[in-house]
Amino acid sequence: MASDAKPDAKTLQVLRDTANRLRIHSIRATWASGSGHPMSRCSTAEIVSVLFFHTMRYKQTDPEHPDNDRFILSKRLPFVDVATGSLGQGVGAACGMAYTGKYLDKASYRVFCLMGDGEASEGSVWEAFAFASHYNLDNLVVVFDVNRLGQSGPVPLEHCTDIYQNRCEAFGWNTYLVDGHDVEALCQAFWQASRVKNKPTAVVAKTFKGRGIPNIEDAENWHGKPVPKERADAIVKLIESQIQTNENLIPKSPVEDSPQISITDIKMTTPPAYKVGDKIATQETYGLALAKLGHANERVIVLSGDTVNSTFSEIFKKQHPERFIECVIAEQNMVSVAVGCATRGRTIAFASAFAAFFTRAFDQLRMGAVSQANINLIGSHCGLSTGEDGPSQMALEDLAMFRSIPNCTVFYPSDAISTEHAVYLAANTKGMCFIRTSQPETAVIYTPQENFEIGQAKVVRHSVDDKITVIGAGVTLHEALAAADHLSQQGISVRVIDPFTIKPLDAATIISNAKATGGRVITVEDHYREGGIGEAVCAAVSREPDILVHQLAVSGVPQSGKMSEFLDISGISTRHIIAAVTLTLMK
Amino acid sequence: MASDAKPDAKTLQVLRDTANRLRIHSIRATWASGSGHPMSRCSTAEIVSVLFFHTMRYKQTDPEHPDNDRFILSKRLPFVDVATGSLGQGVGAACGMAYTGKYLDKASYRVFCLMGDGEASEGSVWEAFAFASHYNLDNLVVVFDVNRLGQSGPVPLEHCTDIYQNRCEAFGWNTYLVDGHDVEALCQAFWQASRVKNKPTAVVAKTFKGRGIPNIEDAENWHGKPVPKERADAIVKLIESQIQTNENLIPKSPVEDSPQISITDIKMTTPPAYKVGDKIATQETYGLALAKLGHANERVIVLSGDTVNSTFSEIFKKQHPERFIECVIAEQNMVSVAVGCATRGRTIAFASAFAAFFTRAFDQLRMGAVSQANINLIGSHCGLSTGEDGPSQMALEDLAMFRSIPNCTVFYPSDAISTEHAVYLAANTKGMCFIRTSQPETAVIYTPQENFEIGQAKVVRHSVDDKITVIGAGVTLHEALAAADHLSQQGISVRVIDPFTIKPLDAATIISNAKATGGRVITVEDHYREGGIGEAVCAAVSREPDILVHQLAVSGVPQSGKMSEFLDISGISTRHIIAAVTLTLMK
Repeated sequence: MASDAKPDAKTLQVLRDTANRLRIHSIRATWASGSGHPMSRCSTAEIVSVLFFHTMRYKQTDPEHPDNDRFILSKRLPFVDVATGSLGQGVGAACGMAYTGKYLDKASYRVFCLMGDGEASEGSVWEAFAFASHYNLDNLVVVFDVNRLGQSGPVPLEHCTDIYQNRCEAFGWNTYLVDGHDVEALCQAFWQASRVKNKPTAVVAKTFKGRGIPNIEDAENWHGKPVPKERADAIVKLIESQIQTNENLIPKSPVEDSPQISITDIKMTTPPAYKVGDKIATQETYGLALAKLGHANERVIVLSGDTVNSTFSEIFKKQHPERFIECVIAEQNMVSVAVGCATRGRTIAFASAFAAFFTRAFDQLRMGAVSQANINLIGSHCGLSTGEDGPSQMALEDLAMFRSIPNCTVFYPSDAISTEHAVYLAANTKGMCFIRTSQPETAVIYTPQENFEIGQAKVVRHSVDDKITVIGAGVTLHEALAAADHLSQQGISVRVIDPFTIKPLDAATIISNAKATGGRVITVEDHYREGGIGEAVCAAVSREPDILVHQLAVSGVPQSGKMSEFLDISGISTRHIIAAVTLTLMK
Repeated sequence: MASDAKPDAKTLQVLRDTANRLRIHSIRATWASGSGHPMSRCSTAEIVSVLFFHTMRYKQTDPEHPDNDRFILSKRLPFVDVATGSLGQGVGAACGMAYTGKYLDKASYRVFCLMGDGEASEGSVWEAFAFASHYNLDNLVVVFDVNRLGQSGPVPLEHCTDIYQNRCEAFGWNTYLVDGHDVEALCQAFWQASRVKNKPTAVVAKTFKGRGIPNIEDAENWHGKPVPKERADAIVKLIESQIQTNENLIPKSPVEDSPQISITDIKMTTPPAYKVGDKIATQETYGLALAKLGHANERVIVLSGDTVNSTFSEIFKKQHPERFIECVIAEQNMVSVAVGCATRGRTIAFASAFAAFFTRAFDQLRMGAVSQANINLIGSHCGLSTGEDGPSQMALEDLAMFRSIPNCTVFYPSDAISTEHAVYLAANTKGMCFIRTSQPETAVIYTPQENFEIGQAKVVRHSVDDKITVIGAGVTLHEALAAADHLSQQGISVRVIDPFTIKPLDAATIISNAKATGGRVITVEDHYREGGIGEAVCAAVSREPDILVHQLAVSGVPQSGKMSEFLDISGISTRHIIAAVTLTLMK
């Protein structure tokens, strides 16, 4: 262990030489491509050299091995596990990995995150810092590369490393100040970090952007620019002249103590236990289904943000307390932690919040898609049906947001049976899944034997005399059914479709039923007009002649009030569906 | 001044009595409505009493007077200037008001923000804290109501007020710890805060949720619940018994020293100075137009997040340095500051960022719409045309996001002339405006005399022989024009429409031109398929028989590469438009 803390002179020289080789490599690579960040690479060369060739334990031949130490380059550009590039998200993902390592895998691997000083301005960094100290993540090390310069000029704190130190300490972190170009100091700091119990460690490294390049080091206006062509050879020669050895260091092997796990092919142990006609909110059913899923696979985890008692993730928490992660009111970090927990297939992560508050984490979700993160998001309290709590709590744009995320599966179940299926399908589906749930109690409409598939709509009311097709989901499906009941008494037969997933949308079922009902379609949704069910349906039928779509949706910012009043005022209640059907059939 | 610092015994008693009256009022109001947060109101009763009846200066009869001190209730529910309710956004808005007061109005009014301990977990709070100390906002006071309890249980730091103090101090704030139920201590702290120069002040107030209500004070599971009916009378009587006076205090009048300003009816001083055929990027034109706008009205301000050199807001910064606010890499706070700056009509605020990074602030934007905030957002580097920097930097979901915001006007100019008009129209338009700009240089297609209106599309190519209508915007409008040129050589005449604003969309022009071209429409956009131009057009024509729409848009996460390759790989280039036209006409 002494050699870890204080490497011999030869090792130190090889680490210095490795850092300079990294410099040369980045100068050449970005010079060749005409794009990239060689100046930032120069500030971090020694940090990366020490981490990869002295401190970290991993199998060079198997970079995704579960027992390897993790490395997250928050500053820019993807590395193994998560795509960053949008700043300030790396520490949150690192927290998820470290939490998983310490509490779920109970394994030896450690997590290292290298972040820039510019991105320390992102609040998401401080959400993650509060999380890591609260959970005593002593297997986590974050290195601040304080190189003083952002994209457009100096960052606010410039080289005041003591202020970074104060902030880290105030957020409960063990903190070291080091010269980020001194490999010996770095070796020692990382070794000391490995001895600290119950606290994460921040290494605040004072560095210089463009280090080692005369007239560019610590100078402004070089962000994201390659070295000038005419100087490249001379600069490379200068750096080469400082290299004294020709050796490579071999990283230490990891301790192989992660448990063997499986997160695939999770089966429902019993069919859903609801009867047609039972009344229960889909957000409550979600809580019950999730707790049941937790019994089917021990790697199911749930994250929540101080809302367990409203989102019903409380049920999971009670039954599986060791797999519940309280993320408090910090939605950006909750999503990043979920992304981190799910890396390398270590967990099946469900993050639960009021659907409206996922807007807080849109950038994290967007980047999660780039990372191909396997995470499941559950948004409760959707739409106007949230009623009394006012517009800040109502999700009316969540479908627009999640639909715009590439490859995201968007479930919008309308009863207890389909909600339970959505939870199981999400657990078994790669990529991001979003389940939209509602607060009002609604009737169970499917039998426990009903089968559900992604991209497969249900025709829930159907006769050969149907004159029009109404598409609704969640509370509006029930409004549509009530409208169909009412209209049938007037001799008007209405077909009703439950899309089940809004993305992918079952265009084939919608088109064939629309054609069978005279090309007349009405969509009705508890969501703004833009980017929701109506527009998805319009786009799905846009190349079909003779199908016309009438959209009922929410317009404008709602005020607080009672759910029943809301649906009516906003034009998405049974009464409005009846009127729209009547109007359409008159034409 | 001594009385401000140390009020006499009688004043203190009136302040205590006022606090108890506030308690009774909140118990009664929430008991009547069955909804609300009486327990949180009880923890803040003394703070609110002291602020409103001792510390703050304002005209009771004119709550929106520009010289009044400002108050932001970040914890919950709207107050005068900004809607909060989504947590952690109040301090950022308060920063915008304080910045405006100190640097733009150079006036005496002060800004007070009351926030909860639960919301201190939101990173946006710490973005705002860093901003306020960086700009020495000594006219800003934030009160932390540390009542220990969140919605679902204790918050992580419970009553550890010293940790809050350490964090505030590490972020550069003058900080006091007080007993939040001691009106004398509160008076003194607020008085001291008014004497501190160049630092904002945090008052960390230890309080108890449900203070004054036996068996509910400091107990869990009372969040957001009214007092039990059967106990309400006894509780009100108990609190009434502590009231000793029957007096009301009159707040001090404000110092009336804000400048008289006008932010309406801003005219372009000269027509745009571009010639048809000139090549320039719309994001550069935006920078030039904004600088010009700055000369037309002295209350135009620009906020930017460490990207001035890429977003061309640098041009404004050079010409109007005193009206440029560097917000560093903290987009959530940038939007909140803009909202704050724009309250009470004090400024015309433009916040500029890579369009992709506004996803970071979706919740702030959503709440901005609830507040009816008059802010303008400019998103550069939209779509695949951002090319080399990789998917994290490319906005492909920004139209979906901004379209879903109620009453948001979404501009997507396609050349220099229309960009300049968009900037002027945005400055003159109430509510939120978003302008989407692009990186590639594109040709000027309009003359300087062209007139632009919100919701008015331009038919940019037109003949009586047109067989099909193509709708594009930004780079894809130019791809559409190139396709039309190519097809005209084959004798196929194509109509081309520039929507100019995507919301509101000029449905009438689209429908009439679609009908005139055989009902054939192709949309082509540098954006994901969901929530963008294509879906907006599909929805606009959804009730028209005989109009079919073929959408060309981006699918899936792109990789890095060159712009020209991208458009082609993603199916939105000239070649694909030609193929889609040919295919459609074959049918």
